[in-house]
Amino acid sequence: MIQVEEALSIIVENSNSVSIEKIHVSKALGYILAETVYSPVAMPPFRQSLVDGYAFIHSERHQYDIAGISQAGEYSKIKLKENTTLRIFTGAFVPHNADTVVKEEHVMATENSILITRMPEQFENVRNKGEEISKEEIVFDANTLITPAAIGFLLSLGITEIDVYKKPKVAILVIGNEQVKPGNKLPKGKIYESNSAMLQAALQTIGIRKAKVYKVKNSPKVSKELKGILNKYDIVLISGRISPEDNDFIKEGLLENGVQKHFNTISQKPDQSMFFGSKHETLVFALPGNPAASLIDFYVYVYPAIKNRMGFSDIHLKKILRKLNDDHTNTSGKTLFLNTLHDETHVTILNSPNAATLNTLAIANSLLLFPNDVETLKKGQLVTLLQIE
Amino acid sequence: MIQVEEALSIIVENSNSVSIEKIHVSKALGYILAETVYSPVAMPPFRQSLVDGYAFIHSERHQYDIAGISQAGEYSKIKLKENTTLRIFTGAFVPHNADTVVKEEHVMATENSILITRMPEQFENVRNKGEEISKEEIVFDANTLITPAAIGFLLSLGITEIDVYKKPKVAILVIGNEQVKPGNKLPKGKIYESNSAMLQAALQTIGIRKAKVYKVKNSPKVSKELKGILNKYDIVLISGRISPEDNDFIKEGLLENGVQKHFNTISQKPDQSMFFGSKHETLVFALPGNPAASLIDFYVYVYPAIKNRMGFSDIHLKKILRKLNDDHTNTSGKTLFLNTLHDETHVTILNSPNAATLNTLAIANSLLLFPNDVETLKKGQLVTLLQIE
Repeated sequence: MIQVEEALSIIVENSNSVSIEKIHVSKALGYILAETVYSPVAMPPFRQSLVDGYAFIHSERHQYDIAGISQAGEYSKIKLKENTTLRIFTGAFVPHNADTVVKEEHVMATENSILITRMPEQFENVRNKGEEISKEEIVFDANTLITPAAIGFLLSLGITEIDVYKKPKVAILVIGNEQVKPGNKLPKGKIYESNSAMLQAALQTIGIRKAKVYKVKNSPKVSKELKGILNKYDIVLISGRISPEDNDFIKEGLLENGVQKHFNTISQKPDQSMFFGSKHETLVFALPGNPAASLIDFYVYVYPAIKNRMGFSDIHLKKILRKLNDDHTNTSGKTLFLNTLHDETHVTILNSPNAATLNTLAIANSLLLFPNDVETLKKGQLVTLLQIE
Repeated sequence: MIQVEEALSIIVENSNSVSIEKIHVSKALGYILAETVYSPVAMPPFRQSLVDGYAFIHSERHQYDIAGISQAGEYSKIKLKENTTLRIFTGAFVPHNADTVVKEEHVMATENSILITRMPEQFENVRNKGEEISKEEIVFDANTLITPAAIGFLLSLGITEIDVYKKPKVAILVIGNEQVKPGNKLPKGKIYESNSAMLQAALQTIGIRKAKVYKVKNSPKVSKELKGILNKYDIVLISGRISPEDNDFIKEGLLENGVQKHFNTISQKPDQSMFFGSKHETLVFALPGNPAASLIDFYVYVYPAIKNRMGFSDIHLKKILRKLNDDHTNTSGKTLFLNTLHDETHVTILNSPNAATLNTLAIANSLLLFPNDVETLKKGQLVTLLQIE
């Protein structure tokens, strides 16, 4: 039996291998950039008007003849004279020798000429070439998270493909004889199988959308099924449990397939039993059968492993501090994870450590980390929460 | 020109109609429940053993003969006598007249009998029928957000279909002559079209995965394209801009198709021009052409409209308070939205209000809301941020 912190170190150590793939920028939301990206162009690529108005060569003169028009998307070759101006629109090309644009609100215009009623400063309303970024300048450093704005920026520079850290391929293997598919009638002694859809949803929240579910009876077939899965996936989540019993086909399957055990119990509540092992680069987590304990272990242990594989530097659930609304004690000597609901300042515990329940976890937005070496947390005290929303 | 707060009120008022659909629980992540859900079963559906051990009728007796076995998923009809016990596993059915389970660590066992070495309390290690939820009890109230744990809980009760508030169908209409698809060569005077993929990514972050993109030249075709889109979608995001010019086909298209204008400028920076209108239940936002301004308007205005349509009660970006790292002034008389990066206590402004840039928005995790009636924000002062991560 190991402590929570030790379990986390072992997982981090074993999940830090990454691989790189090239993907289209428009598909890259939530990935981490695996290269430094340089701009192939200057942005803006030409001098742009910031307003709808008239481009001219700045002087004391207020009256100009209209020599033409520059629409967005057009490239005007017109060369202005000191007494001519060009009708121009926002984002449009500012002709070579013009230096200033006057807003249309600040002129009186006829069809052929304008009178400037409020003179702009020289260079006003002109956005210079390369003002946002120069050619060959760094767009993003390696290890930048790809956000919607990053996607917009890369594409605006004409960059369509980038190297990112691959998302791991995840399989969920459900093992058990007692489980019935929800929607069917529940025979006596059986329960509904709900963990696989729950884990798929939890994976979705961190961008793993295609976790495949395999189901197998608790039988010698487990080993064969596991063999195929270990070859195809980067992370395997086993929903079932590893008991000390002879009839434990999971344990046997892991052994037969050469999965190296790193640990199988953690000094924690709810549920101390969680197996973590690996074979080559594939990680195997056997989560507890209790659904709430299973999901808590997913958040605390599987989540950082996946984030690590995806190249994130902050891989753990975000820690925040809040004031506790009530006294709580922990005499178990184990680390507790409690379902909690926090606001900007305070936190309320929703369940007892002896009842790991999904109904409270469903409405929780954090987990209280109750350290194993602390016996009492007092009302008003700042406590550490792991954010799960 | 209206103020930010007024613009938000108008949007909220016009986006509060919801519609309901029945979906499978496993697809319901991120939806809001539109009904109160009651449990069709008790959970657990029978008395369950919490441990691997032996079930017996509690007494002073320490020695018991093994009368059989109860595996998880099996329904044992065995009736125990005062001197018999049943081998039992975690989650398995506890036979009718047994009241207590002793952990296997606390017995000495032969093939046929056990000796209890550490006597449990009566009822210990037995989880009662209905301990988590009784039949007909409320599982979740209406308006509950469906989290991974909620999915697990509903399915564990055998509930597979629920009524949720529909996600709106969103279309993005890109209008312009100056835009080239990223990946192609950029002719003089043109820019890359990046707003549609950026808005698609931003929509993804709130669970709208299938926003369709339409592209049309700034021409009389806009009106026809708009007609088809207005009939098919709940929310239309127009990427382009509505200028006061004669050649504005967007304005004409909106007018021709009977889109009612609610406003088209907001007293804010970056970019005051954002059109908001509606036709029946369909909302139309014409976002500024500047990509950073467009994305900021998406976060501030489109995001709450979508959340409102999805039945959320907290529909705006989450507001948080942080200490400002530098002095900043705003003499524009307009509300500013600045790209900011905050940690648990402080916040740094990344850009000037005159330069709405995607490179800083890409690494921002919040927007500073700089009120129009405040001229100076001082270093160390608590300021309001809108969280965008």
